[in-house]
Amino acid sequence: MMKKRYRNGDIWDFEHEMAVAASRQVVLGLDGGTTSTVCICMPLIPYTDLLPDPIPVLARSIAGCSNHNSVGETAARETLEQVMADALSKSGSNRFAVRAVCLAVSGVNHPTDQQRILSWLREIFPSHVRLYVQNDAVAALASGTMGKLHGCVLIAGTGTIAYGFTEDGREARAAGAGPILGDWGSGYGVAAQALTAVVRAHDGRGPLTMLTCGILRSLELSSPDELIGWTYADPSWARIAALVPVVVSCAEAGDQVANKILLDAVQELASSVKAVVQRLGLSGEDGKNSFPLVMVGGVLEANKRWDIGKEVINSIVNDFPGALPIRPRVEPAIGAALLAWNFLTRKSP
Amino acid sequence: MMKKRYRNGDIWDFEHEMAVAASRQVVLGLDGGTTSTVCICMPLIPYTDLLPDPIPVLARSIAGCSNHNSVGETAARETLEQVMADALSKSGSNRFAVRAVCLAVSGVNHPTDQQRILSWLREIFPSHVRLYVQNDAVAALASGTMGKLHGCVLIAGTGTIAYGFTEDGREARAAGAGPILGDWGSGYGVAAQALTAVVRAHDGRGPLTMLTCGILRSLELSSPDELIGWTYADPSWARIAALVPVVVSCAEAGDQVANKILLDAVQELASSVKAVVQRLGLSGEDGKNSFPLVMVGGVLEANKRWDIGKEVINSIVNDFPGALPIRPRVEPAIGAALLAWNFLTRKSP
Repeated sequence: MMKKRYRNGDIWDFEHEMAVAASRQVVLGLDGGTTSTVCICMPLIPYTDLLPDPIPVLARSIAGCSNHNSVGETAARETLEQVMADALSKSGSNRFAVRAVCLAVSGVNHPTDQQRILSWLREIFPSHVRLYVQNDAVAALASGTMGKLHGCVLIAGTGTIAYGFTEDGREARAAGAGPILGDWGSGYGVAAQALTAVVRAHDGRGPLTMLTCGILRSLELSSPDELIGWTYADPSWARIAALVPVVVSCAEAGDQVANKILLDAVQELASSVKAVVQRLGLSGEDGKNSFPLVMVGGVLEANKRWDIGKEVINSIVNDFPGALPIRPRVEPAIGAALLAWNFLTRKSP
Repeated sequence: MMKKRYRNGDIWDFEHEMAVAASRQVVLGLDGGTTSTVCICMPLIPYTDLLPDPIPVLARSIAGCSNHNSVGETAARETLEQVMADALSKSGSNRFAVRAVCLAVSGVNHPTDQQRILSWLREIFPSHVRLYVQNDAVAALASGTMGKLHGCVLIAGTGTIAYGFTEDGREARAAGAGPILGDWGSGYGVAAQALTAVVRAHDGRGPLTMLTCGILRSLELSSPDELIGWTYADPSWARIAALVPVVVSCAEAGDQVANKILLDAVQELASSVKAVVQRLGLSGEDGKNSFPLVMVGGVLEANKRWDIGKEVINSIVNDFPGALPIRPRVEPAIGAALLAWNFLTRKSP
């Protein structure tokens, strides 16, 4: 264990160079996504039912992509290790002060992903450190429930996923498989449907739509033919998902094609949550038990007349009246730190 | 003109090194796709209503991808120039013997694409050579009509496009915009829908389907969770499209989900053709005029009980009884050469 200390010496050099507040114990929470990775170092506060507000944070560090599917295993690990070292260094701490780490990272889709990352983490930290590896959606859930793994989170940004936990530790997810595998309710999905509608109208395969004007103007193109070159030029999902506000504007202006795309997205997003709630029985036998429903991501936060998030909530509450919608006030990395803290203090009170 | 002769000297060196049958005039036909590029060198035969069978071919050369959207402008040009030089060299000919070139290449979606390639071609060939640049779908049409630009071609392989011409030279297309822009009837589209159905069944968002077993077995995976890693590992469209036979098998075995995916694909493919036929008025005022309907590509050629091509034809003939289905007996590059020959001999009889 701690082999990495010698292999990647420079990352952890600060541990020899600084006076460390050795008595103060800390937990680390990481939120690793495709765009960026955030690490929070939090002091280990005693277990209590009422958390301090605001949550105490010793340090926050930030780095790039840590999804192993996007950048490969080696680069992902380097990023994760660096961002943890930065957070510890900034907080005047070191690895011996760490009591628990919760690493919530996108691309954890299978128990083998979890095992691989756990055994690598084990090489970095001393053996007494508790280690938890989760999908990044779990940190988003915890950011709404203040560290408690109970309820369902729906994320809809560039991508989308629904992830839920029962109080006795069972878990389930829906969607989150990427655009090829049918995440139609995501920002990418909505925008791709809108682009498709423009091409169809141009071909004579579909109705005319205000999306044509709206999207061409927003991309500074003069004809739908040019969309082909535009999509080929850079296939990044976030670039396509950035068109969602155009779709919302067209729907608000009364365009039926845009309106249908948003209604379909609402159905898709709600159905992901419903599948998770049903599989876990979160709403109890009579379907009326209450459970947290954490809502995260740009697609759900559009505070417009056509409010996708509100419509999704309406659809879910219609089937499960006990769903308690929550918009988190802290970032997912703090959710991950609270998870680490919660695991630790509950298991060793 | 012919600046390229000096810039890319090595490509055309053979012209100085060989005895050339200078009196024999030739035409070149190129079919440039995302997978490969084929060039045919054909002797210039006198104009006749009855073409020789088989079509005389002096040489055939083959190279890699020449879609500028995929490999960039420079690499695409290098490939096209090399494959033309190879065909001329193999046929014991040179650029002065060329009377016409028809370059039919994927990625020609806009008049500016055409102009760019034309002015580059103009640098390679002497000024008397007639040059034609088309989308590769046009070569496929000509391979069914023996060089005549009339009717509609439907291509459905990894991608899909419908392309049509009237006898007086008007043209129209539908689809062919890539998977992001909604080519749902393509091999990629069919397979992506099937993968989505597997994930939905696994999530509890959709009905159980035989596609789960069929696709996991075919990819040697043990759980639908692993599909996420599989799609990320290599996003090539052809790799996904290769799953079409699994979808056909499941539909033949009675799976309703697979059956619906194929029925939807049939609708999509037929609607592309119908949009083109309607915009061009190919079926005349009473809707009964006859026109060639050229059918090309792996998705349409599956000679199974569930025959996608046959169903597409049925749907089209239902609306346009004058559609005359043709399965080409020669490859698209020969279609391109016949086009060059046809343009030339008709315009200067």
